[in-house]
Amino acid sequence: MAKTCEVTVNPGNNTLKVEAGDNLLKILQGAEYDLQADCGGQGTCGRCQVKIEKGEDFSYSGELLSADRLEEGFRLACQLEVEGDLEITIPESSLLTGQQILVGSEEEDNYLESKEISGRPREINPLVRKKSLKLSSPSLQDNTADLDRIYRELTGESGFTDYRLELDLVRELPELLRENDWKIELQQADLLTHQEIIEVSSTEAGSSYGLAVDIGTTTVVAALLDLEDGSEVGRRGEYNRQSRYGEDVISRINYASKNEKGVQEVNQALIETINELIAELLSREDIDTEQIKMLMMAGNTTMVHTLMGADPNNIRRSPFVPNFFMPPVFKAEELGLKVLPQAPVYCFPAVGSFVGGDITSGILASRLHSQEDITMLIDIGTNGEIVVGNQSLLIGCSASAGPAFEGGGISCGIRAMEGAIEQVNFDADYNFQYRTIGNVPPRGVCGSGLIELLATMQQRGIINRSGRYNRELGSDRLRQREDETYEFLLVPAEETDIGEDLVFAENDIKHLLRSKGAVYAGIKIMLDRLSLEEQMLEKVFIAGGFGNYLNIEASIRIGLLPDLPRERFEFIGNSSLKGARRAVLSGEAFKESLELASKMTYLELSSDENSKDFMDEFVAAQFIPHTNLSLFPSLEDNDSQEEE
Amino acid sequence: MAKTCEVTVNPGNNTLKVEAGDNLLKILQGAEYDLQADCGGQGTCGRCQVKIEKGEDFSYSGELLSADRLEEGFRLACQLEVEGDLEITIPESSLLTGQQILVGSEEEDNYLESKEISGRPREINPLVRKKSLKLSSPSLQDNTADLDRIYRELTGESGFTDYRLELDLVRELPELLRENDWKIELQQADLLTHQEIIEVSSTEAGSSYGLAVDIGTTTVVAALLDLEDGSEVGRRGEYNRQSRYGEDVISRINYASKNEKGVQEVNQALIETINELIAELLSREDIDTEQIKMLMMAGNTTMVHTLMGADPNNIRRSPFVPNFFMPPVFKAEELGLKVLPQAPVYCFPAVGSFVGGDITSGILASRLHSQEDITMLIDIGTNGEIVVGNQSLLIGCSASAGPAFEGGGISCGIRAMEGAIEQVNFDADYNFQYRTIGNVPPRGVCGSGLIELLATMQQRGIINRSGRYNRELGSDRLRQREDETYEFLLVPAEETDIGEDLVFAENDIKHLLRSKGAVYAGIKIMLDRLSLEEQMLEKVFIAGGFGNYLNIEASIRIGLLPDLPRERFEFIGNSSLKGARRAVLSGEAFKESLELASKMTYLELSSDENSKDFMDEFVAAQFIPHTNLSLFPSLEDNDSQEEE
Repeated sequence: MAKTCEVTVNPGNNTLKVEAGDNLLKILQGAEYDLQADCGGQGTCGRCQVKIEKGEDFSYSGELLSADRLEEGFRLACQLEVEGDLEITIPESSLLTGQQILVGSEEEDNYLESKEISGRPREINPLVRKKSLKLSSPSLQDNTADLDRIYRELTGESGFTDYRLELDLVRELPELLRENDWKIELQQADLLTHQEIIEVSSTEAGSSYGLAVDIGTTTVVAALLDLEDGSEVGRRGEYNRQSRYGEDVISRINYASKNEKGVQEVNQALIETINELIAELLSREDIDTEQIKMLMMAGNTTMVHTLMGADPNNIRRSPFVPNFFMPPVFKAEELGLKVLPQAPVYCFPAVGSFVGGDITSGILASRLHSQEDITMLIDIGTNGEIVVGNQSLLIGCSASAGPAFEGGGISCGIRAMEGAIEQVNFDADYNFQYRTIGNVPPRGVCGSGLIELLATMQQRGIINRSGRYNRELGSDRLRQREDETYEFLLVPAEETDIGEDLVFAENDIKHLLRSKGAVYAGIKIMLDRLSLEEQMLEKVFIAGGFGNYLNIEASIRIGLLPDLPRERFEFIGNSSLKGARRAVLSGEAFKESLELASKMTYLELSSDENSKDFMDEFVAAQFIPHTNLSLFPSLEDNDSQEEE
Repeated sequence: MAKTCEVTVNPGNNTLKVEAGDNLLKILQGAEYDLQADCGGQGTCGRCQVKIEKGEDFSYSGELLSADRLEEGFRLACQLEVEGDLEITIPESSLLTGQQILVGSEEEDNYLESKEISGRPREINPLVRKKSLKLSSPSLQDNTADLDRIYRELTGESGFTDYRLELDLVRELPELLRENDWKIELQQADLLTHQEIIEVSSTEAGSSYGLAVDIGTTTVVAALLDLEDGSEVGRRGEYNRQSRYGEDVISRINYASKNEKGVQEVNQALIETINELIAELLSREDIDTEQIKMLMMAGNTTMVHTLMGADPNNIRRSPFVPNFFMPPVFKAEELGLKVLPQAPVYCFPAVGSFVGGDITSGILASRLHSQEDITMLIDIGTNGEIVVGNQSLLIGCSASAGPAFEGGGISCGIRAMEGAIEQVNFDADYNFQYRTIGNVPPRGVCGSGLIELLATMQQRGIINRSGRYNRELGSDRLRQREDETYEFLLVPAEETDIGEDLVFAENDIKHLLRSKGAVYAGIKIMLDRLSLEEQMLEKVFIAGGFGNYLNIEASIRIGLLPDLPRERFEFIGNSSLKGARRAVLSGEAFKESLELASKMTYLELSSDENSKDFMDEFVAAQFIPHTNLSLFPSLEDNDSQEEE
């Protein structure tokens, strides 16, 4: 028997009994502390830091933290095995739940929609529809069976095969009908393969709701919609609890595949996240779980696989074949989701392993697929998904951008959250000026801030087009590192919320150039394959994890986006949630998404015919904005004076 | 605490520990002794007799048995409460399982079919079909998802909504495909509302089977069919274990409604019966339960309700509205049936509370609905179901015949089983001559025997047209009873298998006249409503529980059947099973049954516009053959000399 130890956790003074040899990260996650662990407990992301207050009886194998940090008592929980009693503090910055999530708002979402359908009243015709029936009472002259009486009312004729019902409902129906004097309400669900009566109730059953869910790898955002008037009742976001198993989809897939119960664990973490969101949404309203009659899920291919409890391993292995593009419609109960047990769970179809249902949903939101003009949709995250098309053609690809635009792998990088620097500038003396989300002391720089930083530094001559610091700058903020590369001090430790210097290193710039280069190369290949010129893109929709802000000018300046007239760009925020909201309220809209996914071509950038071209484009784009400056004509004049 | 007593049961010397006050029938049924209890334990049917060998410590409230019988130690188990230790013997005649069941044979069933479709090869196109697929391996050029790869092979295009699969299968599919090198077999099921892939397996999965089940109130007969070559692998019959809760549908419904867990108990009894049949069928073959891929159920409305675990109570209450005419297609697993868990369970649709799926199936078997000639189908059991129609019209009704033709309520009556007298005659001295099923000593007279008995007795002047014995007969076999009515001794106790006189009393004759009168009245009303003359019936199919024999001449002579040329009658045996067999092998055939049920008119004999006419016809038919002799012209000459 292993020795029992006590770990006391602060804040909260919560004492946990554990066995000697247990891993501290697993202990804390098991006790529902949602520590960040982007790398899935590999000791490489540095997110799960805890401070040891008392006790020395542990073994530690971490290598990431600086000597100073270790001196202060900080350790990576994932690299620590408990051997005796400990007292620790978890800093807020190590917790997922300590971070505020930007969920957008109904008004912002309606903006796009109202612009597109200008004036037309919003269509409300959901896949699950309430019908109120007043059935004629049976008599000797009309002794049609109970169920057939309902069929007759719904279809105008006897239809043995028009609808299904669950066995429980078949058993309960006769009493329900008689108790309610043949006046009932029912929920009729279009399950795509067939129609089903999922609920029969008295006429006082109350309003019906549908839940639109954007299942992001990092955050999950849910909007609760009234299925009758279409209004949004509430919206909440949560960090995806899968984050404990890794930051990005690849590390989640690895965790799922390499651990015995990995598939179930990542499934459970996601289901818990969604159930928590539902509980939070309902706690603010006088709405019962059973009043949620449907769920509409928009997520990338890996997320939808983990939602289904399916092994996502084939997604990451060549030839990158997922188990399914779209799962069948299952009932909430089957998946462990806490709403009406029979509520159908719809998932947007994927087009490939790395162009998922979130993109299909985003296309639906932007209506790209129904326009004459050729439009591009870019969703920039760990993968840069790019779609180009119009009403007659649709092609999509995914460029492996890496996590840089979400703050991953960048010294000062964080996600778009409170305390994230999202706008930057330098004064004449190269002093750094910034604005944070929430106007609080800075904790790091988010994706949109990093793009501005890169663009501004290049424009001001702080870095050159290759991304190297100007050694002659003459600012004491520029300092050399041990490895002889340079870094720039953005915010000194004492001004930050995290007690550490915020610095921007040449290595960070290299990361960012790779990310933007991958996205731009993807765009180039897509246009090449369609024999389109950049200028033929009448509109560019930008979706993704930049919070609610992206500097288009800066994005073009660093060569992330093509050099088009600025008014053609539109930042559409969380288009995945927007599409899901639309599909909750309109079955036709959801079916449109099936059609568009069917007709969409998936361009596999790693295939033989594409990979060399992609590599060439990628290398050419490792420059600010590009090795071929003629691709960015609007920048030439401005930049000329700063040429080296 | 109640006292514990021991009941020792023979044969078997099996000792049961019970509590003082327990009912003996329930004790024995709980210990899996399948005692007959047609009346559901009311003390009225006399079937559950046991012999007390030792012990007197019990209370007894039975009134049915004669003083002699009581003297011998016999008691009705249902009327006995155990108060102390007992030793008993259960006579074989009290057990359901002691009785051999006549299940017919494939050859007999094919007879009808082959005659109808003369020469045409039998169509085999079941609702559940095996498909062998060799999928192309995925590549970077063709990275369609696993599931969509299957869809593509099945439908020729990507079809997100063409098929469903269970969640488990969605999870297991990728490994199955890879393990089998993309060469698989799948079972594709038409669930009527939609298509579903119910199983995916390696190509060595073996043959597929379907089970056709005739769920009779008394007996359940199942035929196991090879879904590829259509051959019948085996056939078995079992008494319906629901019999312990009552002999006929009304007593079963009463039991289900009046006992707290009654609905579940009658459901369980039926499920157990079917599972037992499956186990018996498979024990003789090298076939696995999972190889049974579908079940096709033909049963009356009450049976199908109890199969579904649905409360059948509304079936017997005016206005006789069942919960459903046809239940949705559920999976075997949901219903507790032990075959492939995902195997769909199809049930033939009913047309009314008392014209059930067994009749629909019978129509399908006889092809009545696809002929030009007007044909009648009669299924004579506790209810006489009558269908008249052709390819353009169909009308059905049910006449409450009572259990007489199944031996119920008749002193000497038993079901068609081994030892049942099925043919009779009288010599010149009125000595009784007979033939039993199996040529064994007689245990009673079955329905077809009773019809012959009645016809022969009337023809020979033993009874008159009113059904009273000829007091002047001069045979010592005719004897007066205490209540001053007469009875005829058919077989003295010492010649029987049961050790009791087989007698035929005036009261028995009254019962039989009521039964045949109800059926004939039903026929008359049906023809009236259609403005048809009897002679316009080109064919009469007789289905039902008469074993494999019915004397048409005798049936007409007693006025059960209309007086038509004899060659128009055809005895089609268990047409319910025949129809189910056909529907197992042909999805088209099953769909025909849905159509014919939809277009069939149900004539409710108890409704205001019919009940008076029915009563008039019923009263007029309480005569042999009828008060209006002109309805039976072929009998007039023969009978004239015997007129009173």
